[in-house]
Amino acid sequence: MTRLDSAIRRLTAQRDLLDWAACEIAPSGLIVELGLGNGRTYDHLRQRLPGREIYAFERKVAAHPDCIPGDPYLIVGDIFETLPAFTERVGTGSVALIHADIGSGDEASNAAVARRMSPLFEPLLMPGGLLLGDRPFILPGCKDLSDEASVPKGRYFVYRRL
Amino acid sequence: MTRLDSAIRRLTAQRDLLDWAACEIAPSGLIVELGLGNGRTYDHLRQRLPGREIYAFERKVAAHPDCIPGDPYLIVGDIFETLPAFTERVGTGSVALIHADIGSGDEASNAAVARRMSPLFEPLLMPGGLLLGDRPFILPGCKDLSDEASVPKGRYFVYRRL
Repeated sequence: MTRLDSAIRRLTAQRDLLDWAACEIAPSGLIVELGLGNGRTYDHLRQRLPGREIYAFERKVAAHPDCIPGDPYLIVGDIFETLPAFTERVGTGSVALIHADIGSGDEASNAAVARRMSPLFEPLLMPGGLLLGDRPFILPGCKDLSDEASVPKGRYFVYRRL
Repeated sequence: MTRLDSAIRRLTAQRDLLDWAACEIAPSGLIVELGLGNGRTYDHLRQRLPGREIYAFERKVAAHPDCIPGDPYLIVGDIFETLPAFTERVGTGSVALIHADIGSGDEASNAAVARRMSPLFEPLLMPGGLLLGDRPFILPGCKDLSDEASVPKGRYFVYRRL
């Protein structure tokens, strides 16, 4: 498999999973995009979930200008500071879907970030709320759905809040 | 169509076209990748065309370390200087395939670059040699194949040296 094949597989798997989650989540509740990046998946989520409130978190905004959320839906800064403040503001259990695509090329640092980030997610999610991650997280209050048929194996990790 | 859909379409079209060209080109002759970028299409070309000499041109190398050609196949610098020097060195008519993926986000600058670049391509191509471009070029010595069924419409432009 070439790197071009691999990129196509990765993006297709990502799209399939976002489409699945868009059908699966509760009809109310906030949507959280962690890592706006180039804005591609944010654009996908807002088109698949019209009328839903989608908050995008990003350390340094570099998305296509068309894919940058307006005030108050863009939250710029270090997620370890902005996410707890957000939970405080919107209240625990108010999020229906978190999409966490935070990976850098550095696997050791990715794993450490995932460990530190895990405890921030559960308070945010409503019962039945979904977390889609580009890496495994440690979420004792969630059911790990990563082995279900709809999830691209080893490329995405899915958790549902109990 | 979302930006995620669009990225999948673009990469799939690119792969289909590279695969088509890999079958279509002459069994000898150099391969030229203009714009190494992240190295994805270079990786695809080298796996589809094993044993062929592939030269990659790039102003500023930022590809994945696995996808950077070794000496003398990586040519770093301004294409307007490096490409004429390359033609001088390898001789006119020695290239079977040029893949030119040079676009920036700036459409006006892209068009100007394409106009300036066009005259550099024809001397390099062997008779029957193919140029695949992410934009139209002005190549009076080539047949424009961009409307053929195998070419993704409006996303890629294909020329064959007469």
